[in-house]
Amino acid sequence: MSVVVDLKAYLDGHRATVDTALDRVLPPESAPPVTIHRAMRYSVLAPGKRLRPVLVIAGAEAVGGRAETVLDTACALELIHAYSLIHDDLPAMDDDDYRRGRPTNHKVFGEALAILAGDALLTLAFRLIAGNAARVATPGVVGIVVAEVADAAGTNGMVGGQVVDIESEGKTISPEMLDYIHLHKTAALIRAALRVGAQLAGGRAEQVEAISQAGQALGLAFQIVDDILDVEGSLAELGKSAGSDERKKKATYPSLHGLPASKQRARELIEETKRLLNPIGPAAAPICALADFVFERRS
Amino acid sequence: MSVVVDLKAYLDGHRATVDTALDRVLPPESAPPVTIHRAMRYSVLAPGKRLRPVLVIAGAEAVGGRAETVLDTACALELIHAYSLIHDDLPAMDDDDYRRGRPTNHKVFGEALAILAGDALLTLAFRLIAGNAARVATPGVVGIVVAEVADAAGTNGMVGGQVVDIESEGKTISPEMLDYIHLHKTAALIRAALRVGAQLAGGRAEQVEAISQAGQALGLAFQIVDDILDVEGSLAELGKSAGSDERKKKATYPSLHGLPASKQRARELIEETKRLLNPIGPAAAPICALADFVFERRS
Repeated sequence: MSVVVDLKAYLDGHRATVDTALDRVLPPESAPPVTIHRAMRYSVLAPGKRLRPVLVIAGAEAVGGRAETVLDTACALELIHAYSLIHDDLPAMDDDDYRRGRPTNHKVFGEALAILAGDALLTLAFRLIAGNAARVATPGVVGIVVAEVADAAGTNGMVGGQVVDIESEGKTISPEMLDYIHLHKTAALIRAALRVGAQLAGGRAEQVEAISQAGQALGLAFQIVDDILDVEGSLAELGKSAGSDERKKKATYPSLHGLPASKQRARELIEETKRLLNPIGPAAAPICALADFVFERRS
Repeated sequence: MSVVVDLKAYLDGHRATVDTALDRVLPPESAPPVTIHRAMRYSVLAPGKRLRPVLVIAGAEAVGGRAETVLDTACALELIHAYSLIHDDLPAMDDDDYRRGRPTNHKVFGEALAILAGDALLTLAFRLIAGNAARVATPGVVGIVVAEVADAAGTNGMVGGQVVDIESEGKTISPEMLDYIHLHKTAALIRAALRVGAQLAGGRAEQVEAISQAGQALGLAFQIVDDILDVEGSLAELGKSAGSDERKKKATYPSLHGLPASKQRARELIEETKRLLNPIGPAAAPICALADFVFERRS
């Protein structure tokens, strides 16, 4: 019981810190060109779980670092997540009208501005990461951290997963291909969030490696839970239409393996996440609690 | 006469170096997901002037550096340029069917892949810059160089100019607003190309500043010449349809100031570019020659 209370306080505290920081790192709406800054802020500042930023912070704390040390990078990961959602929602991609319970970016600002807002968020993200790393990390780490995030976000990561996801719509795909999509589209950035948090905070190589592996398992679990929610959830819970995967003929864990096996697999991955974090010790407790939180979104 | 011959050899040599490097830094078409790597290579490796990469190299050489030292960053600037063209050409933006004499990216690969290819090129660009800077520059410079390029590419630079450009279509705009568009949409990245080349090569602050100011004048000249070419050029010369600015009701230098005044302004800016480079001495000769080359595209 106390752990649950602690987690809520932990999450609420870090989310508030992240929300304040996001407001700070985004250009104000008053700065020209105002429309794009408004579009960027509309999507990023929509209420959200802030899972990736909190994972950056939890990754740093797991190796003895502090939230303030990695805050700009935490924000950067949320900007990258937000840019990917804006572009994914475009008519040429998933063609979604709602996101986080509100009209999608292009429904409010038009497609041109939505494309450019995504571009600008990705650009700003790298500016924040490089600046953050240059301030706090040992010199060699700056290039490494930018490269890690770029790899997780590019064609060997998130964008690559999105490409295969789009190309697989309406097709029968193998379980291996579905794992490829989930590992690249979702898990890569979640893994990177934990990993760069630990790297920026000066984590030792074996700590960073354990945290990375846990991040990969957690990321895969997160996407499977997302698939389950798409079947079971409601618009109110999801902020987007349930059943949208099925309408788009997207392969998902439930469509390929059934709901019970999907829930079982998610549970196993959460346990694996925690097991992989054993070597880190008590400082990894927040990551473990976050893993439980990811799983409990399901119910 | 000898200067012209030297410039041709200089440009051809550096262009060949850049083309070889671009082929190296881009993921091979054989690497999965193959479609996006094909889309990225299609646009980047289309024959081009490679102005921005050559300017990165010229910026380095102007302060005593060598091409190899800045080659990955030179490539990165071309990737950013290519991504911006892919996204600008989309139906939601300028809706262009031809670019560099070939069908635009979305006409060949579809809109979804064109959006993602642009995203991936921008991501890869920052990976290259950070890696390059970490290898060759003094530690503090890594964060600075990434920030410089991000500022030049984001809402205070290229993307910001593009937003105002789109929002100004069909409207009467002031000469000041047109300068804003040109300075942000085009000049910012050209200035950054010269500037980060000089920074990576260890240029002194006053050298970097002189080269930056020259880059800004050169960038503005380049966009004015581009506007002039859009009025005067042919599809064969431009690789895109002439008169497209007028069809899209875009404000241009010629539409606002007339052709003779536009040519005069371009000429003045080229002279200003060279004057600003005086303090750099003979090592800036290639940049001056490039400035002449930019102007002579007109005829």
